[in-house]
Amino acid sequence: MQRVTNTVLRKNDEVLMLQKPRRGWYVVPGGKMEQGEHIKETAAREYKEETGLTLKDPQLRSVFTFIMKDGEEVAHEWMMFTFYSEDYSGTLKSESPEGELEWVPVAEVLQKPMAEGDQHYLRHILNHNSILYGTFTYTLDFKLIDVTLDPMNP
Amino acid sequence: MQRVTNTVLRKNDEVLMLQKPRRGWYVVPGGKMEQGEHIKETAAREYKEETGLTLKDPQLRSVFTFIMKDGEEVAHEWMMFTFYSEDYSGTLKSESPEGELEWVPVAEVLQKPMAEGDQHYLRHILNHNSILYGTFTYTLDFKLIDVTLDPMNP
Repeated sequence: MQRVTNTVLRKNDEVLMLQKPRRGWYVVPGGKMEQGEHIKETAAREYKEETGLTLKDPQLRSVFTFIMKDGEEVAHEWMMFTFYSEDYSGTLKSESPEGELEWVPVAEVLQKPMAEGDQHYLRHILNHNSILYGTFTYTLDFKLIDVTLDPMNP
Repeated sequence: MQRVTNTVLRKNDEVLMLQKPRRGWYVVPGGKMEQGEHIKETAAREYKEETGLTLKDPQLRSVFTFIMKDGEEVAHEWMMFTFYSEDYSGTLKSESPEGELEWVPVAEVLQKPMAEGDQHYLRHILNHNSILYGTFTYTLDFKLIDVTLDPMNP
């Protein structure tokens, strides 16, 4: 089962985001866990690979299960662990292997084009320091068809 | 990939533990995630099934990757999410489907027979309210051969 981690890095009221080339959607940098890694190792490694930056004291802020359904069948299940950090060291890469890096003002983060479910956790993480748990169910073409969140109104 | 959750329920300076019949080792109650569940749902459901108790406000306290090695090969990889709670409702089952339930004084928890790696996270959870991350590597007969922890001295 695929497991991914990513991190919301917020500094000077901006969040470092990555615009992916395929759909033009924005994400926060991250990537897949490798065998034997723990989630905090993955978060640090992937952030460094994609941005050049070393995160300072990343803290876990959301844990999600994702289901992708092909009709009634579950086609994929994966998990995502999202961290939060307010500082870093290092120099931002001018080009990321995964897309275009951009510091986005906090007030504009939720207005960027993105997977519908991502708004839920980004809103939570930008406004709370508790952990959000949830399950997102998507169709194969990434339409969000069900959301379970705890707490319910992040 | 198998994912399990369990919970340290501590009340009146005692922790509810479960002695498993096979090796006589002690664990804290929990079990496997089902498809589409998020980890907090699993923690609540499994605790209820094994003990009869409903956890109050469980909080995530450790996230681990486990590797089981057959020589140099990785035979299994799984993840474990451990929650912590200080209160519950409901009535304790007199018999659990998984083993014998026992309220163990906090001072005796780490003296019980258990998987070697479990001492690391139980010590952390009984003494800190931060999240511990780590990877435990075992042999097929459950000898602990490597540990990576963050923070390093829980």
